Amino acid sequence: MANIHDDNCIFCKIIAGEIPCHKIFEDEHVLAFLDIGPIAKGHALIIPKYHASEITELPSDFSAACGRVLPKISTAIQTVTECPAFNVLQNNGALSGQAVMHVHFHIIPRYTTETGLKYNWTPGQLSSDFALELRDKIIAKLS
Amino acid sequence: MANIHDDNCIFCKIIAGEIPCHKIFEDEHVLAFLDIGPIAKGHALIIPKYHASEITELPSDFSAACGRVLPKISTAIQTVTECPAFNVLQNNGALSGQAVMHVHFHIIPRYTTETGLKYNWTPGQLSSDFALELRDKIIAKLS
Repeated sequence: MANIHDDNCIFCKIIAGEIPCHKIFEDEHVLAFLDIGPIAKGHALIIPKYHASEITELPSDFSAACGRVLPKISTAIQTVTECPAFNVLQNNGALSGQAVMHVHFHIIPRYTTETGLKYNWTPGQLSSDFALELRDKIIAKLS
Repeated sequence: MANIHDDNCIFCKIIAGEIPCHKIFEDEHVLAFLDIGPIAKGHALIIPKYHASEITELPSDFSAACGRVLPKISTAIQTVTECPAFNVLQNNGALSGQAVMHVHFHIIPRYTTETGLKYNWTPGQLSSDFALELRDKIIAKLS
């Protein structure tokens, strides 16, 4: 579902000022605030001022606006927290771990190997025939 | 380090056409291609055509361009792969898991709870005093 505002969405209520947040940035298209359930100190969210459950449903002007503010907001967080690294995570669909069904980009400082966003990474191999077939199908959808 | 092109960067070489890739999309500012070491079928990367190691060093026009193409590229991947969910991940710094020191956004399809990007999520609590102090420091850096 995609709309400017969804009355039942907690993030839309935050945007509307009906629910408080620890706001760190706001412009015409986005709002950024501290995550109320941080997995690391300085964990913050950037959300578009447009209700789309997933990034696939978000107008590109709003996804561009989220991307545009990533450098300055993450720089401010990194400067203040002095975190040596950080992850940006944006989940789509319950199976991906998405909990609030309004697009949001997590900025998650990483201080140590044992804290923050710990994830598995088990790379496979991309066989040439399979890759060419997949590539062509994706290109066909994009054109 | 941030520059248009870094001679020692594998992603800059891909942008320049010196190393092949399975390209799925390209415009003035970004290139997207299949990850050569996929952690799930359809795992792709979006990279800016600007050499910045981390998002903090990327000019906002290029980070906006990455954000702008996220909806259409992820929609194409989801349509082709029929994945029920997917994660977008962008790592900054070796400690975050970043392997190639050129900004990249992973699009990682999620098919099951046991495959793809599996991560821990142990939320803490944001105490009000701490949050206000952190918020004010971040806002000060942003202004």
